[in-house]
Amino acid sequence: VNPELFQHLDRVIHEKGRLAIMALLAGSPAISFIELRDALGMTDGNLTTHLHTLQEVEYVALTKSKKERRPTTICTLTSKGRDAFAAHVELLGRIVEAARRNSSAGA
Amino acid sequence: VNPELFQHLDRVIHEKGRLAIMALLAGSPAISFIELRDALGMTDGNLTTHLHTLQEVEYVALTKSKKERRPTTICTLTSKGRDAFAAHVELLGRIVEAARRNSSAGA
Repeated sequence: VNPELFQHLDRVIHEKGRLAIMALLAGSPAISFIELRDALGMTDGNLTTHLHTLQEVEYVALTKSKKERRPTTICTLTSKGRDAFAAHVELLGRIVEAARRNSSAGA
Repeated sequence: VNPELFQHLDRVIHEKGRLAIMALLAGSPAISFIELRDALGMTDGNLTTHLHTLQEVEYVALTKSKKERRPTTICTLTSKGRDAFAAHVELLGRIVEAARRNSSAGA
């Protein structure tokens, strides 16, 4: 396994809660805060913190909308976020392949 | 992407520095502290902290040996660590596959 692979892992996406958020958003044009929270079983506070972290690096955009008069936050991946997630998945795929090769060779 | 996949990710292994350490140890019967530090470009302090975290959950065993009269720390994966790493790689593989399927379907 080439150690350099790991150095390129993006810490903002790699954390497992944010990896889950990015994965869900990558599969959908937009997801509401509530849907995301319920799908991931996160607390409001935990999801809010992760979304702000992702918003700061411009991977996620949050927009307020009113649905049946109730304010709703809609979460979407930005194109920068989509690219970063695709690159992360690609890198994880290379790590998985290298680890599998390695364990069958080294065991 | 099934959100449950992410909940099963082991935080101890998932952190990128420790993921790199586990991957290197999985490919080799034993690696010295110095070799590991140099391969990963970590500081002594950083590597020591990560190794202690991995030792606490019994994924890594550290043994002192004297090589040419100089004390050396030798790092090995325990069988528990080997199993945990294999399970982590398997889970990452499933996440990568789901994310790839999803992005080709959702884009």
